[in-house]
Amino acid sequence: MSALPQPLAQTQAAFDGWMKSVQAAIEVALQGFLPPVTQAPQRLHEAMHYAVLDGGKRVRPLLVFGAGALFDAPVDTMTRAAAALEMIHAYSLVHDDMPCMDDDALRRGKPTVHVQYDEATALLVGDALQAQAFLVLSETAASPVTTLPMLRLLAHAAGSNGMCGGQAIDLASVGVSLSLAQLEQMHQLKTGALLRASVLLGAMAGQHLNADQTAALDAYATAVGLAFQVVDDVLDATADSATLGKTAGKDAADNKPTYVSILGLEPSRLLAEKLRDDAHQAIQSFGDKAQRLRQLADLIVQRKA
Amino acid sequence: MSALPQPLAQTQAAFDGWMKSVQAAIEVALQGFLPPVTQAPQRLHEAMHYAVLDGGKRVRPLLVFGAGALFDAPVDTMTRAAAALEMIHAYSLVHDDMPCMDDDALRRGKPTVHVQYDEATALLVGDALQAQAFLVLSETAASPVTTLPMLRLLAHAAGSNGMCGGQAIDLASVGVSLSLAQLEQMHQLKTGALLRASVLLGAMAGQHLNADQTAALDAYATAVGLAFQVVDDVLDATADSATLGKTAGKDAADNKPTYVSILGLEPSRLLAEKLRDDAHQAIQSFGDKAQRLRQLADLIVQRKA
Repeated sequence: MSALPQPLAQTQAAFDGWMKSVQAAIEVALQGFLPPVTQAPQRLHEAMHYAVLDGGKRVRPLLVFGAGALFDAPVDTMTRAAAALEMIHAYSLVHDDMPCMDDDALRRGKPTVHVQYDEATALLVGDALQAQAFLVLSETAASPVTTLPMLRLLAHAAGSNGMCGGQAIDLASVGVSLSLAQLEQMHQLKTGALLRASVLLGAMAGQHLNADQTAALDAYATAVGLAFQVVDDVLDATADSATLGKTAGKDAADNKPTYVSILGLEPSRLLAEKLRDDAHQAIQSFGDKAQRLRQLADLIVQRKA
Repeated sequence: MSALPQPLAQTQAAFDGWMKSVQAAIEVALQGFLPPVTQAPQRLHEAMHYAVLDGGKRVRPLLVFGAGALFDAPVDTMTRAAAALEMIHAYSLVHDDMPCMDDDALRRGKPTVHVQYDEATALLVGDALQAQAFLVLSETAASPVTTLPMLRLLAHAAGSNGMCGGQAIDLASVGVSLSLAQLEQMHQLKTGALLRASVLLGAMAGQHLNADQTAALDAYATAVGLAFQVVDDVLDATADSATLGKTAGKDAADNKPTYVSILGLEPSRLLAEKLRDDAHQAIQSFGDKAQRLRQLADLIVQRKA
């Protein structure tokens, strides 16, 4: 830290502190928004906690709060949107890890839900988490006029024209030679839809968006979403399982197309840098209030796990 | 028909006609509310249509329209609520039939989704249908003030304190000796939560309910929901697979507790009759407008499949 020029160090320290506070707040919120483990059916509720708590970088909540800062969104609405997104994300991981999908045994450094519990429980955990996500967002203190479009956006992002659709394309792409455009389309649904929803929900928690604002945030979210995936592929090809907290080299072993397999390693790194610049560019008009979103784009490209 | 006294015959014919019109309308609506099969990912969308269309008695939509008649609810809102409920119900069947749950090969006289497609597709079909249910209901023409509480109720009914919770208890009860009270509690969540939601959503589509109205409809829905399950158990023990459109005798073979295994066959039939009377009693105060709900209670107890 002492080697950095002072203003930059302060900025970085402030960002790190902000990140930690969002991550801590969302952990507490998630705990409160999940049914208590003491309540029947206890095994299901315990497994829901296991799947959601104490794990992940909370990228989606960070994007919600980063975008919420643009319009000084109320904390309760941002928190519920962030928790709902994390529940949808967590359920998708639980189902994705199941034997009939990716058949993975390790997630966030812990045994996956179907390994720790059993397959039937993993199936129900995912199903119940999706319902819980909509419940949590539906109970925001914001007006129904604010909340309803947020629920609509979340449902669209989670469904067959969003995340589930991306997973279906991913499934169909095993062993198939995809073009770069097809790979992008798959990721824009599989992970991009929820990342985009995170940015938009954070902003919508603060105010009704006009077309220009929506377009700017869309462009930011698209760039960040793709950058996230490109970096994921780079890390999958270069990092080890202990660092990642999940099985490394899995995509190559599964014969799944990745940015690295299509573009090569160094061009993938350069692409991630370009997408980061695109993200910065997209939100220039928001000025200082977009600082957190800019820093999040940097973080996503620079992360090591 | 000619053997019946004329007024009763007319009433029954009118009810049959009403039922057929609701069933036909919901079939058309579901088709329109699902993403088209021509849209990518096509296999997923095709499997979603396969899971939802051309099947089932549409009991939940009938309850929605029956309860909606109490307050002259707008057709669009009732239709969307009914379609959302059918999507949730259909997704739960798809997941419930999977090898890690009940491992069933036949449903509504057709191969189950994981048999017709594959397990991964079945998993995604269920996940995408749940999201689609919330999307469809969120897009009603009713005001956000009407729609938001309906979404909240649906999310609660679908989740771990509703349908998913009931399935978790069901899973845990295989080979276990349940008391009648425990069996009732399981069914009140597993199938009862969604049937109750059907009645309440239909009524809420028409007007904001006061406490007395909610209590009366709750009592009706609870009685009808239990009657539905008791009759299911009786049919499972007495009918054949061809009539049921699903594997008969499955619960006994799976060593699952049923009303028939706990009470015996004839006492189960008597219980269903008593629950039908309870249902009638509960909605007496609504007078003539509750005619469809009364007829539905009769239908549920008298059905042969």
